[in-house]
Amino acid sequence: MNTRLDNLIRRLNQESVDAAFFTSPSTIYYLTGFHCHPHERLLALGLVPGAEPFLVCPSLERSRAEQAGWTADILTYSDAEDPWSKVKKAYQDRLNQDAIRLAVEKSQLPLARAEALQALFSTVTFIDGEAIINEHRAIKDDDEIAILERAAVLADFGVEAGVSVLQEGITEMEVVAHLEAELKKKGIHEMAFSTMVLFGEKTGEPHGKPGSRTLKRGDLVLFDLGVVLEGYCSDITRTVAFQTVDDELQRIYQTVQHAQTAALQQCRPGIPMREVDIAARTIIDEAGYGEYFSHRVGHGLGLDAHEFPSIHDQNENILKEGMVFTVEPGIYVPGKGGVRIEDDVLITADGCKILTQYPKDWRVVT
Amino acid sequence: MNTRLDNLIRRLNQESVDAAFFTSPSTIYYLTGFHCHPHERLLALGLVPGAEPFLVCPSLERSRAEQAGWTADILTYSDAEDPWSKVKKAYQDRLNQDAIRLAVEKSQLPLARAEALQALFSTVTFIDGEAIINEHRAIKDDDEIAILERAAVLADFGVEAGVSVLQEGITEMEVVAHLEAELKKKGIHEMAFSTMVLFGEKTGEPHGKPGSRTLKRGDLVLFDLGVVLEGYCSDITRTVAFQTVDDELQRIYQTVQHAQTAALQQCRPGIPMREVDIAARTIIDEAGYGEYFSHRVGHGLGLDAHEFPSIHDQNENILKEGMVFTVEPGIYVPGKGGVRIEDDVLITADGCKILTQYPKDWRVVT
Repeated sequence: MNTRLDNLIRRLNQESVDAAFFTSPSTIYYLTGFHCHPHERLLALGLVPGAEPFLVCPSLERSRAEQAGWTADILTYSDAEDPWSKVKKAYQDRLNQDAIRLAVEKSQLPLARAEALQALFSTVTFIDGEAIINEHRAIKDDDEIAILERAAVLADFGVEAGVSVLQEGITEMEVVAHLEAELKKKGIHEMAFSTMVLFGEKTGEPHGKPGSRTLKRGDLVLFDLGVVLEGYCSDITRTVAFQTVDDELQRIYQTVQHAQTAALQQCRPGIPMREVDIAARTIIDEAGYGEYFSHRVGHGLGLDAHEFPSIHDQNENILKEGMVFTVEPGIYVPGKGGVRIEDDVLITADGCKILTQYPKDWRVVT
Repeated sequence: MNTRLDNLIRRLNQESVDAAFFTSPSTIYYLTGFHCHPHERLLALGLVPGAEPFLVCPSLERSRAEQAGWTADILTYSDAEDPWSKVKKAYQDRLNQDAIRLAVEKSQLPLARAEALQALFSTVTFIDGEAIINEHRAIKDDDEIAILERAAVLADFGVEAGVSVLQEGITEMEVVAHLEAELKKKGIHEMAFSTMVLFGEKTGEPHGKPGSRTLKRGDLVLFDLGVVLEGYCSDITRTVAFQTVDDELQRIYQTVQHAQTAALQQCRPGIPMREVDIAARTIIDEAGYGEYFSHRVGHGLGLDAHEFPSIHDQNENILKEGMVFTVEPGIYVPGKGGVRIEDDVLITADGCKILTQYPKDWRVVT
């Protein structure tokens, strides 16, 4: 069995968990090496400390699970079959009891599946297996860090590809099309999330959607994009000006940049996560833009584009070596424009390493 | 209030449901016109028959919800706030009881949120709201059909764009990059799912992944792609041969095409869904390839790329006018190659209309 699975099962034992049933595709990939997005079909990893683990997947995915190196039990089912009777038998073969403490990922497991699991046993007490798996997944090992670094370089490349085609009259979606095509030619299968390229007043919407808005002199241009590389995500935001820009937008840019620098300075082992958010928020508040920084400063990054931990101003959890997350303060003035600067950050033994490296200094693209 | 919400609330009343809490982004879009993918943040629509509905969304999404035309109550929360106390108050303001029958989407609602809802009331009985909403969503109205037709035309265009660049030495991912860029230039923000372009023996994997495989004479080329247009998905698969092809692969193609034709002939109101699957499966079985048709014949299509109903050989539900789903038999011979032909089909008053129109006759691209 692999080390990750070994470590996890040891932890489950310590927590007096009788069994686990993990269902998020990213956790299953993390623990088994098998990458599968089964849509609405059931994909699961069943664990019983001391017994052989079992994977549950659609029949048509069996060979891919085997190719991924999974050598333990695989239960498969066709589209017309009910997988739950097979799950029941797998647990019965491995457990001597009918009342169990079952660890699941509560924020992922749909109620319908929780009810199906309840029906398999006389009593099920659901334990928060997510806290345990999150703790493990949050600390990236060297292999994971190497992939995240390469994913960050590709995010830099995506921004550069986008900046390189900026010219008067191009639309936001044309820029998206170009930069994504360049990334796909480099072998990227999927973006980590829907690529955002926004022009002018649209940068003032933190979750705006690219469309047919054309670029004109004086616009800000905001890029927010990331790739999925070998299952791992990157996430970068850069904001540049096109040809010229007004003074207030430039002041906003500098405020966000100072805020981001201050936040990055908090990034080292032992610091409560909220300090990273507060460092950025204080600078933005003091500049008078507090109400326009409407989101947390960052989020964990790894197999999911948004994962544990959440870096917000109430989170007292402590930063640890090996954590990777985003630092992305922003100011969004509705109708006028907005700026966000986002990097992917790795906590090292004595500070941090910034994985995304596209330049952040104020830039007017001409 | 809009008609969809009106109709749904009438149904909830008939089912003696006290309240509903819908959380899937596609259902919320369907009922409110507000399109939002909040990642791990809570997005929900609270309904109490006879009282004003309420939307729960992150603070930074409020203006988009209003722009989308939502004029009823909106509860917002910041990243550091707990939304549940607000949800509790919203229900308390609208309900006179503390023990409720609450309709939720059981296959979507995570257990953590179900537990949070349970903590708001003395007793919660979860009712399957999904069956109700699925029934409504499955029957597309004229506006939805018009969008789905346009989405299908764009899927046809995507295949054509891919076929147009086939040449010896091009990689699968280069074809993906090209066809997606062409669609994005037409304003498509996102694909309905990860685009599949597979060459040669890789077509023999029903869920293969495009990569750096280069195209060579004699390969089959399989395209499976779809777009999201105004929230609605299309989904097409076509398989063509490159320059030449061996006799068995051509025989497989003809078998799949006969199977698809037979399945489409079953598509009319009043027919049990399983008949569509069985029609295709019988032809493939009789040709000796039954073991290589490893999935159901199709799935519902609409705001989700895979939605209710599932068209498989055990499903006795009846086809109704206004349903839209895929018909996509396939044969996958590992190591050799595979063929799938997939169309999007609308059930009409007396038969069906095939929305995707890219030619299906056996084609050798030269």
